[in-house]
Amino acid sequence: MKTINVGLVGITGYAGMELTRLLVSHPSMRLAMACSRAESGKRLGDFYPFLNHMPGADVVISVFDPQEAARQCDVVFLAVPAGTAMDMAEMLLRAGVKVVDLSADFRLRDPETYATWYKREHVCTDLLHKAVYGLPELYAAEIAGAKLIANPGCYPTSVILGLYAAIKNDLVHTDDIVVDAKSGATGAGRKAAVPTLFCEISDNFRAYGLPTHRHTPEIEQELSLLAGHDMRVSFNTHILPTNRGILSTIYTKLKNPATSLDEVREAFTRTWEHSPWIRILPKGALPETRFVRGSMFCDLGLVVDPRTGRLIIVSAIDNLCRGASGQAMANANLMCGLPVETGLNTLAPLA
Amino acid sequence: MKTINVGLVGITGYAGMELTRLLVSHPSMRLAMACSRAESGKRLGDFYPFLNHMPGADVVISVFDPQEAARQCDVVFLAVPAGTAMDMAEMLLRAGVKVVDLSADFRLRDPETYATWYKREHVCTDLLHKAVYGLPELYAAEIAGAKLIANPGCYPTSVILGLYAAIKNDLVHTDDIVVDAKSGATGAGRKAAVPTLFCEISDNFRAYGLPTHRHTPEIEQELSLLAGHDMRVSFNTHILPTNRGILSTIYTKLKNPATSLDEVREAFTRTWEHSPWIRILPKGALPETRFVRGSMFCDLGLVVDPRTGRLIIVSAIDNLCRGASGQAMANANLMCGLPVETGLNTLAPLA
Amino acid sequence: MKTINVGLVGITGYAGMELTRLLVSHPSMRLAMACSRAESGKRLGDFYPFLNHMPGADVVISVFDPQEAARQCDVVFLAVPAGTAMDMAEMLLRAGVKVVDLSADFRLRDPETYATWYKREHVCTDLLHKAVYGLPELYAAEIAGAKLIANPGCYPTSVILGLYAAIKNDLVHTDDIVVDAKSGATGAGRKAAVPTLFCEISDNFRAYGLPTHRHTPEIEQELSLLAGHDMRVSFNTHILPTNRGILSTIYTKLKNPATSLDEVREAFTRTWEHSPWIRILPKGALPETRFVRGSMFCDLGLVVDPRTGRLIIVSAIDNLCRGASGQAMANANLMCGLPVETGLNTLAPLA
Amino acid sequence: MKTINVGLVGITGYAGMELTRLLVSHPSMRLAMACSRAESGKRLGDFYPFLNHMPGADVVISVFDPQEAARQCDVVFLAVPAGTAMDMAEMLLRAGVKVVDLSADFRLRDPETYATWYKREHVCTDLLHKAVYGLPELYAAEIAGAKLIANPGCYPTSVILGLYAAIKNDLVHTDDIVVDAKSGATGAGRKAAVPTLFCEISDNFRAYGLPTHRHTPEIEQELSLLAGHDMRVSFNTHILPTNRGILSTIYTKLKNPATSLDEVREAFTRTWEHSPWIRILPKGALPETRFVRGSMFCDLGLVVDPRTGRLIIVSAIDNLCRGASGQAMANANLMCGLPVETGLNTLAPLA
Repeated sequence: MKTINVGLVGITGYAGMELTRLLVSHPSMRLAMACSRAESGKRLGDFYPFLNHMPGADVVISVFDPQEAARQCDVVFLAVPAGTAMDMAEMLLRAGVKVVDLSADFRLRDPETYATWYKREHVCTDLLHKAVYGLPELYAAEIAGAKLIANPGCYPTSVILGLYAAIKNDLVHTDDIVVDAKSGATGAGRKAAVPTLFCEISDNFRAYGLPTHRHTPEIEQELSLLAGHDMRVSFNTHILPTNRGILSTIYTKLKNPATSLDEVREAFTRTWEHSPWIRILPKGALPETRFVRGSMFCDLGLVVDPRTGRLIIVSAIDNLCRGASGQAMANANLMCGLPVETGLNTLAPLA
Repeated sequence: MKTINVGLVGITGYAGMELTRLLVSHPSMRLAMACSRAESGKRLGDFYPFLNHMPGADVVISVFDPQEAARQCDVVFLAVPAGTAMDMAEMLLRAGVKVVDLSADFRLRDPETYATWYKREHVCTDLLHKAVYGLPELYAAEIAGAKLIANPGCYPTSVILGLYAAIKNDLVHTDDIVVDAKSGATGAGRKAAVPTLFCEISDNFRAYGLPTHRHTPEIEQELSLLAGHDMRVSFNTHILPTNRGILSTIYTKLKNPATSLDEVREAFTRTWEHSPWIRILPKGALPETRFVRGSMFCDLGLVVDPRTGRLIIVSAIDNLCRGASGQAMANANLMCGLPVETGLNTLAPLA
Repeated sequence: MKTINVGLVGITGYAGMELTRLLVSHPSMRLAMACSRAESGKRLGDFYPFLNHMPGADVVISVFDPQEAARQCDVVFLAVPAGTAMDMAEMLLRAGVKVVDLSADFRLRDPETYATWYKREHVCTDLLHKAVYGLPELYAAEIAGAKLIANPGCYPTSVILGLYAAIKNDLVHTDDIVVDAKSGATGAGRKAAVPTLFCEISDNFRAYGLPTHRHTPEIEQELSLLAGHDMRVSFNTHILPTNRGILSTIYTKLKNPATSLDEVREAFTRTWEHSPWIRILPKGALPETRFVRGSMFCDLGLVVDPRTGRLIIVSAIDNLCRGASGQAMANANLMCGLPVETGLNTLAPLA
Repeated sequence: MKTINVGLVGITGYAGMELTRLLVSHPSMRLAMACSRAESGKRLGDFYPFLNHMPGADVVISVFDPQEAARQCDVVFLAVPAGTAMDMAEMLLRAGVKVVDLSADFRLRDPETYATWYKREHVCTDLLHKAVYGLPELYAAEIAGAKLIANPGCYPTSVILGLYAAIKNDLVHTDDIVVDAKSGATGAGRKAAVPTLFCEISDNFRAYGLPTHRHTPEIEQELSLLAGHDMRVSFNTHILPTNRGILSTIYTKLKNPATSLDEVREAFTRTWEHSPWIRILPKGALPETRFVRGSMFCDLGLVVDPRTGRLIIVSAIDNLCRGASGQAMANANLMCGLPVETGLNTLAPLA
């Protein structure tokens, strides 16, 4: 198998850490370049003690340079904050390198929506139509031909995969959906801050960002495309005292209140039959975040409540693997002509 | 102050543990009797190492005997499983002892509803109309005159207190309410079981019991009384990797979509102005379970989402203190002619 | 009871938070002044949401001013970093206010030792001989007459209380003691920093500071005074994924290897018979940090290992209550003529 | 590569779970048989929800049968309690199947020591001399030729690997070693029991088993062989509120108190230079359990304390991977002629 040289810009956050981890198990990708202004000059194994005696440990951290990236890399992952990524992506594309952008910069097709929710103008609007939204189950063909991937947000991944079959099969009203989402603390990033200190999160639980979380327009964009009309969802977020995991409990109203659980299960199973990462749990079973830890799985539990005419969809993913770095790797696999699952079918510790 | 002698039946669970803890700080209640068939004969301080060198440590655990209880106690707390409590309550009342029942046995006024949800016949139906639902903010006068208190469930306490002002002030549609509730693991009890082992709960999050949690009819009963008509809610539960705390995110639709947050806040503040345990958080603030730990507070965060016409109420309580043993003590205070807050205004460690 | 007005300088850390919590339950102390440069002007209840509807919530945070402190307070607690406290203490004493200093500034009687371990000169050396080391079990009389208390460090409290009876009764060699101490993360303070983020501490365990933790000379000073000769201990620290608690496992060699566990227990029990906060656990029982949470207890488990001739002492305290703010309150009680335990005999949630 | 068919007896515990997880990534081992009396008849993927859509999910759980094992398997892993394994091992060996026993049944070469510490007679003493102690760094050649492997205990793995270089290079006194070991809660097994419930372990820390943990004679046996004379260690254990990880802090006295840290580091580095799983951390760095999670690494931090003449060795492993199932797989690799690291060089989530 031909070696694919990859670059990683932004190593200090959890997404960078996760990508480095995943690269260790990839049979043909090799970390060729790791960039961070703050840590440049260090050996990667000195910054990431876990990486020593593993592939990638001896890479020396450098300052981002698009020409150097072009010399060394076939594909570059951008794990930098929204607002920073767009310029880097443009430079890399001009230099001829494929880009997987883990930030939000290319996810919203409408630059005005971006400006409204992210409080900043989009400065590379010409690239927006070239970027492909990197949800492999929905857009595998487009991803394979893309030069620039907008890697989906963690919450949107869990919500879109959760609702897809329900909307596609016209099971539920699209104007009355409530999402109650809960995320582990890696979702809040790795910046020093009092609210994410151990003693502030541990043995605690809280809602945050209601009702204006930035992932809302991304969810609405993709679901609207699917529904064929504009959709609004009530999207609400909470922070869990766990490192990882997103569990979204999605409340919908059945179009036909007499729809049975069996009918719903049949529709979901059929829709996802060629998508091994989507697991429809057995009747009565509900997802747990630990069972998707460190993996690409999206576990879906289905509940029909005849008392209220609701279909409740419980969707669990790993926010860092499926919701960020693993999905980025899956996209890079497709862009490089590899099977989508290459390097991704390991299991993480379950307890 | 006259000493009030109290008995506690059921010491092996978390509610019993919490009540014992709270009694240490009570200025006039004294633990006179502690019952457990399994642990009888032991000194309480040997079973509860934390209690040594504190009031109550030298009580010898005994087997429940209603006559003995009548000799020793003014009031008895039943912290035993549903189904076991009703017989005990009847015997105690006949022997002339006041009873606060922490189980579900006297919460549902309709014995058929009890039979449907608890899968067992009610055998003391004649006591049902004598039992007072022990939510002090709603029923203080009735509680003061009662001989038998049905101490509310933990989830219902958080949901009823959360929704009360919205329904009373006619702000929301009563036929379209979704409750997404999350509870710490003490809520699952102290029975040896694999699903509640540390390694199964830690760094994990899951939904459970959807859509048939037994607290549903209790919530609906009380809200229906308030609304003046039958109400159904979609009530859904999750287990948190925390010891304590319930946070319920309650999704409602505003009757008038133009209602402002200020109007909602004004209605809530007015409704609860004489209830110091209900704290309406400042605009923009949302509750955290740690801030109510070990206390009687119910913290309410209010969010109006004009995009979807929803009022979202976030309600946080401590499931063991406000949701069980602290509320039981508040009820006993009222039954004994004490101020409701006696012994309850301490703060637990916050970090 | 006469009201005692207290001031608290340094409210942003965990020790300040804990002291505020404890003041809520104190029958005669009243928080009259709360200082923080960064937060001045805010209502305390806005900075500490947990405090609302409780005594102290309406205090307005101010900038430290010794004259103002003298006007408003009988005693001031300094919960500020080492190096900052000494000047403040001097100003307060000059203004006639009693001081309990929670920092390390007055703990070491020898200013050179201070300079060596804290990497800074001591600038108030004249106050050193006036400061009383505030371990109530050892120095109650001196504390009662003091104007300035050096409140002990958290680790030293656990180690000194653990070893006291063994050294006093001449049971062990004083030149061969190893302390393996483990602390919850509140011990690392409340400053924003990556190493204490939730995701760096959770499901993790590590040693730190070996072999030069600053609490070493404090432990050696007090044990040397007790032994009557200079002592060195090997003192080693670890950080636990818990909010609170210190558990020190102390390895000693018996002078007489034939000493039985019963003899050791007898010596410890006799030594501490008038100290209700020191609990010698029953034979075979070992301390747990949860059983001392939020309390002044020091739980001691004793193990004799005849195979190796060792006495192992396991000592558990709450690092924030007994190891900082609770002990500070106990000292203030003594300084103000109150029983040492006033306001301190509550129990925190145990699960 | 030829497929190696493996059997697993004992799937309900954490070691069985971990082995199943690791088999998913092994390039040539295939789970052919999974045994459990309690769960027989179930599909493995129904018992282990995390395994669905992965290799092994469709294996049907069966009751252990040595003849069936011989027909289906090249090697069988025994993840059953001590006392149960010895009979099974004998039957399997007689049927011609290689055995890796994860229990303690074949670790102690002296059956009397086994009887003393495990309170039961050894009934297969004739197999004791055939069993090889499965620590690959020490016994790779013997393992490669063995039919029966005594897979080391978790604590002994961390302690023996920690002390090996110090004793081999004659750096420390062998009669004065104290080990203070801390383990995650998976070490306590997956049996339903109150002391390992989430709410009993979480935010708690405690010592246990002092001073008679059953791993003591195993540690002493291997270190005595290395030292060339009988050794006793003081071995002491604690339980952490983490799922995984063992960190052993090992206190030794330097033979020559003037030995420098550089000399110690040089000796350790030289000793382990051909053992990539043993990582000597840089000067000043100390191990963290998260950095070895789910891996075969043993991270060693070295500290010389000139004040007390001690060498302190901090040793961290993953108790389930390196301390049980991963090490079992490494042993099976060697027994089957594969490189020892086959299937084991992945990285688990680090946060």
